[in-house]
Amino acid sequence: MTTIEAICIGDELLEGRTRDANAAALGEYLASRGHALSRARFVRDDPDEIVAALRESVADVVVVGGGLGPTSDDRTRDAAAQFAQCDLVTHEPSLLHIASRFASREQDFTSNNHRQALFPQSATPLPTEVGTAPGFTLQDGRRLLMFFPGVPHEYLWFVERYIGPRFAVRAEFERTMLVFHGLGESALAATIADIVDAAEQGGQIVGFRAAYPVIELKLAGERAAVAETRAKVLERLGDWCVGEDDESLPARLGRQLVARGESVTTAESCTAGGIAALLTEVGGSSAWFERGYVTYANAAKVAEVGVLESTLAVHGAVSAQTVCQMAAGARRRADATYALAVSGIAGPGGGTPEKPVGTVHFALATNEGTFHRRVHYQRASRSKVRAGTAYTALAMLLAFLERGPASMGHAWDDHEIWAPTGIPASEET
Amino acid sequence: MTTIEAICIGDELLEGRTRDANAAALGEYLASRGHALSRARFVRDDPDEIVAALRESVADVVVVGGGLGPTSDDRTRDAAAQFAQCDLVTHEPSLLHIASRFASREQDFTSNNHRQALFPQSATPLPTEVGTAPGFTLQDGRRLLMFFPGVPHEYLWFVERYIGPRFAVRAEFERTMLVFHGLGESALAATIADIVDAAEQGGQIVGFRAAYPVIELKLAGERAAVAETRAKVLERLGDWCVGEDDESLPARLGRQLVARGESVTTAESCTAGGIAALLTEVGGSSAWFERGYVTYANAAKVAEVGVLESTLAVHGAVSAQTVCQMAAGARRRADATYALAVSGIAGPGGGTPEKPVGTVHFALATNEGTFHRRVHYQRASRSKVRAGTAYTALAMLLAFLERGPASMGHAWDDHEIWAPTGIPASEET
Repeated sequence: MTTIEAICIGDELLEGRTRDANAAALGEYLASRGHALSRARFVRDDPDEIVAALRESVADVVVVGGGLGPTSDDRTRDAAAQFAQCDLVTHEPSLLHIASRFASREQDFTSNNHRQALFPQSATPLPTEVGTAPGFTLQDGRRLLMFFPGVPHEYLWFVERYIGPRFAVRAEFERTMLVFHGLGESALAATIADIVDAAEQGGQIVGFRAAYPVIELKLAGERAAVAETRAKVLERLGDWCVGEDDESLPARLGRQLVARGESVTTAESCTAGGIAALLTEVGGSSAWFERGYVTYANAAKVAEVGVLESTLAVHGAVSAQTVCQMAAGARRRADATYALAVSGIAGPGGGTPEKPVGTVHFALATNEGTFHRRVHYQRASRSKVRAGTAYTALAMLLAFLERGPASMGHAWDDHEIWAPTGIPASEET
Repeated sequence: MTTIEAICIGDELLEGRTRDANAAALGEYLASRGHALSRARFVRDDPDEIVAALRESVADVVVVGGGLGPTSDDRTRDAAAQFAQCDLVTHEPSLLHIASRFASREQDFTSNNHRQALFPQSATPLPTEVGTAPGFTLQDGRRLLMFFPGVPHEYLWFVERYIGPRFAVRAEFERTMLVFHGLGESALAATIADIVDAAEQGGQIVGFRAAYPVIELKLAGERAAVAETRAKVLERLGDWCVGEDDESLPARLGRQLVARGESVTTAESCTAGGIAALLTEVGGSSAWFERGYVTYANAAKVAEVGVLESTLAVHGAVSAQTVCQMAAGARRRADATYALAVSGIAGPGGGTPEKPVGTVHFALATNEGTFHRRVHYQRASRSKVRAGTAYTALAMLLAFLERGPASMGHAWDDHEIWAPTGIPASEET
């Protein structure tokens, strides 16, 4: 079997300024095709260090990423020439590509950019369709050294284009991903521990990845076995599954709304636009989303979506009563099928013993009444509370659409919502 | 100077299932004290691979993380014994520590856990206060090999406890970061190439990092020299600098608005809440932001912020006229000092030859009139157009606050904005 390893170049990787994306992406790409990345290393933007790493690498294919940019700290091409003991020469087709790319963007082509068309004389250039920097290869005995740009989306394009043909998908090999939201990684792992054990003993690869605010579960292995594991997991945890493979939560929600010819609006306090932005992440979202309200201050909640001043005075902005009025008011005003509203304490300040930082109230207004939920995001930063809240709001609507009002608990009608003391707080989740 | 490198052990790192946290944390810790992590590498849970990595590492201090857990795939202690050519022996104080930790948690102490008290005979154990697994060191000639557990918070504790005393903070060392938005990495590098060259020749470390939609420039070195470089860069590129060190663009904008006792509102089409969400990323933003409007559909632009139907009919939603009406209308309705409005084509669909995907119109309404700008984000994905647009909108307001209306070009008054044909399109940027 052909062995492969990665060298990622950049001071930023060794100073914790940038978290590696490329070695991880290459490893994941190979694993998804049934192959294994044998090693990876990070090296500084220092020609001597790069040359040493090139000499030490023993795999059949060595993928070198980064340091091909136009700036003075991009030293990979110098190191490659030093390693290959040859000069750097201009590759005219690459120079033309770079110049035309700049021309089409009406940007100035500088002498720095010229550098990106320089290659070691013995190298074979690898054309790019996604950026300025071409890559190149060097043959060293039986080893093939491949040099790719380090910008993650360019690197990944090079991986797919130039690594893909050398590491084909193994026959009957399948990979699938399920995306969960609303339960922790330990709880998720514990709930399906027996399924995971059985799958791993049968030779499948099972990986959890916490990518807040979701947890991804990846399965890989023989096609029929993966399908069976996937079905078992969904049977147990389907209610928490908000996306799979290439379909994100907003895309899935949009598909459901389009199928029903329905629409949604938003009234947001602590997320301040984050829910509307998440809903519209997918192209074509204008089919189900027309408008939303960011009502950050109390006065805005009254003026824009009709919250009663008495409700704010008695229950406060972060309450079941206020958030239900926000949702019902926004739904009426925007004339949408559904309205999602949130009000919470994102922090870092503003918490109290009764309403600690991370407390968020949610409401979903529908033609079958308004549903309320309260969540406490514990020990979460401001940005995590806000990101988690946006996902939870969309998941609440998805649950209504896919599993019906019965999955939502008690629904309050308008009489209860607009009567200042009508609403009992629902259970914490 | 003492050199140091990292070896991180675990199949999950090489399959993209887990993103490295430990090498990044060690690198950041060292950089913050004026030291440099020279290399890092990821190695599989395979004793032969681990031994090879230990042999290849050349630094004075080699920090090995991971593979000290209780399960069968934790192979680091076996590899260390094989490398040191000695047996594994039980260290009684460590065994007592582990057993008492289990007792205090009322968990069962299994034979697997016993493994965590095994060390190569020639090793010196490193006690832990944050987990079950102790670490250990091996002296190999002049090299010191340090073995830490791989759980990130435990690893970091070991770094601070056992690396800290060996790598003290260097006197007169300074690190600073400038954040730029609105010009490309090549243009930025070309503009300050001479300053960067001089700084590097003087021994400073200069690093560029493109973190869309901003570019970070990091400077490190002797305090006075770094301050001088920083001043030179800002003299040339200050207009594009939107943040520095720990102050992000939203935080800086907030500071300016608070100082003036002013406020801002938003009317968003293509970003659909992204500008409001960015403005409120910092705690305390309610001091300058009360409400915003997400007007995704034409009907919403008319109903919520008073765009004229005739303007939409004549000029379309993505036009100077519409976006200026959105801003002026939102400012009046929300009674804010400023209003930011955007309307554009985020893609992937919706482009035309006249208004290709990536075309975005911006307006900033002020008490000195309404300013317009048009930007074309070329070859950018939907998410990049939206993220870039949100940053550009905030940068437009920051420029007004810090450099005054003169930096904005011609301002239109209400008469021009509400007259259907009054506004000539301003220049593309």
